[in-house]
Amino acid sequence: MPNFAIGVDLGGTSLRVAVVNESGELLKKITTPVKPLRTSERIIATMCQDIGELTRKFDGTGELLGIGIAIPGIIDMSAGILRRSPNLPGWQNVPVREEVERRLGATVVLDNDANAAVLGEYWIGSGREVESMFMYTLGTGVGGGVILNGSIWHGMTGMAGEPGHMTVSPDGPPCPCGNNGCVEQFAGATAILRKAHECTSGKGSRELMAEIRQNETFTVEDLFSLAAQGNEAAIKIFEGAGRALGTSVAAMINLLDLPLYVIGGGVAGGWSIFSPFILEEVERRSFVYRSQSPDSRAVITHALLGGDGGLFGAARMAMLASQGTNPAMRDRSVGSAAP
Amino acid sequence: MPNFAIGVDLGGTSLRVAVVNESGELLKKITTPVKPLRTSERIIATMCQDIGELTRKFDGTGELLGIGIAIPGIIDMSAGILRRSPNLPGWQNVPVREEVERRLGATVVLDNDANAAVLGEYWIGSGREVESMFMYTLGTGVGGGVILNGSIWHGMTGMAGEPGHMTVSPDGPPCPCGNNGCVEQFAGATAILRKAHECTSGKGSRELMAEIRQNETFTVEDLFSLAAQGNEAAIKIFEGAGRALGTSVAAMINLLDLPLYVIGGGVAGGWSIFSPFILEEVERRSFVYRSQSPDSRAVITHALLGGDGGLFGAARMAMLASQGTNPAMRDRSVGSAAP
Repeated sequence: MPNFAIGVDLGGTSLRVAVVNESGELLKKITTPVKPLRTSERIIATMCQDIGELTRKFDGTGELLGIGIAIPGIIDMSAGILRRSPNLPGWQNVPVREEVERRLGATVVLDNDANAAVLGEYWIGSGREVESMFMYTLGTGVGGGVILNGSIWHGMTGMAGEPGHMTVSPDGPPCPCGNNGCVEQFAGATAILRKAHECTSGKGSRELMAEIRQNETFTVEDLFSLAAQGNEAAIKIFEGAGRALGTSVAAMINLLDLPLYVIGGGVAGGWSIFSPFILEEVERRSFVYRSQSPDSRAVITHALLGGDGGLFGAARMAMLASQGTNPAMRDRSVGSAAP
Repeated sequence: MPNFAIGVDLGGTSLRVAVVNESGELLKKITTPVKPLRTSERIIATMCQDIGELTRKFDGTGELLGIGIAIPGIIDMSAGILRRSPNLPGWQNVPVREEVERRLGATVVLDNDANAAVLGEYWIGSGREVESMFMYTLGTGVGGGVILNGSIWHGMTGMAGEPGHMTVSPDGPPCPCGNNGCVEQFAGATAILRKAHECTSGKGSRELMAEIRQNETFTVEDLFSLAAQGNEAAIKIFEGAGRALGTSVAAMINLLDLPLYVIGGGVAGGWSIFSPFILEEVERRSFVYRSQSPDSRAVITHALLGGDGGLFGAARMAMLASQGTNPAMRDRSVGSAAP
């Protein structure tokens, strides 16, 4: 039997804990809504219960290699502390790694959700054939992660992989980050929905406005449906998202010349609608891309693992740490998980 | 006595060959104008003569560790071939490494001039204290190079490190690369001089126009002098360069979170004039930069080695190859220079 690790993906909506074996199979998953738990103490307690339950269940089928926890927010890698998280109000300077290690007596690796998602894709998703890749995670905002030669690139302060705040339109819409014209202001769900609500003129806008009036819970998926039916106002909004993403992918190709750029996260469901615009911008804006023959160019594609990508990646972080392959920045420790 | 390597820096204007020892001292340098030599055959023959002369001179003072050659243009790293070069017309698919190795019977490492320049700065210049850095080389155009964990990052096809073609103004001036609004269209010498010639109105333009009329060989340095004397038209042109560079540095900080960004090359001589604009844009456009306390933020500075940076870096490439530390992409061979 192959050994296994526990992957934990804690988001603003749900806590998911899964058993993933070394072959990349998800064997069991426990999902708990986060809101009713309220405090970080109760969420960590539930997390530890779920981990304990799954570990006991799979004890004997193989060795537990470790626990990987993915959380959205700013993480102090060396201390294993969640500094703050836009998705988890009230979580400030929570020593997640120490807490879970103390309660369970097992090795824990902590990283942010986008880094876990890219590691999952790298391991058993769209990145299986490459050594280096970049992934965007399109959700409410736009996050991302970089793999270079098989390792997550964390950067000097652990904050690498924020493509959502690259400038693609220097005088564009203001972003809460303080900049103008960030990728996120075109390709994040919040911005996309704002544009849909603000779309009061132009071809297709009447139909779009009627749909929004009828549907109180109008989402990006509803906008995708409209676009798929040919609504021009909806298509135009996704065109903006695609062009912003394409401009930033082109910059990355010119800078890093990686073989693979992956678009993941919920908003990536509209891939068929916005991907032609991504490719158009990349063709136009990256001579490094164009100077290769078409069959040896960088690949730009969508993620394959869907919502469980972060769980696979979190489990993988623990597996790599148990092998002594530091999934964190090469010159930094991930604490007790690495020598 | 410390061992030494030969560094070669071949540009569109001159061929420079130098002896550099392991302590980072340049012991002797031979400079030859390139234009009178005309053909690639004669340039390579002269290069080999100069290398031979210097090697014989320093034979006995230490061991020759190898020869590093820096050339502007697109280089096939694994084959050691210069594919093409904008600065060396007529050089197409020249097997530089093989030619020099055959003639001299020594190990040769070939890389492009911007990569050599960043490696030089990393070794004994502005990058001495860091493990990773990015460097812009501002010349006629805008090139660059990336060091990640001590190695030049070449990317999948050897073309990484082209910050000059990042888009900073999506509908900006057209670039010969096929894009609009590239960094190079604001911060390259050709673009800067074009802007100076086109500046026919606004404060300070009359003085600038008079200067250009008087001075047939008006250069970027002359524009620096005007700006340093307070000419507003000249300052405005460098403001554009600084803002374009700053926008791209901000994007890189958000993506890679490196500790150091260095501006090098001839145009960097105007550092005191354009650097405040770089910093202003970085502050505004990178929340990753702003979220660090001022004393632990990324450093943005100018290169320290001046015109000889590429020579130091070329020699260093050979030293690293002799140690088995592949200065090329981690997963690619640099041919006979690395195992």
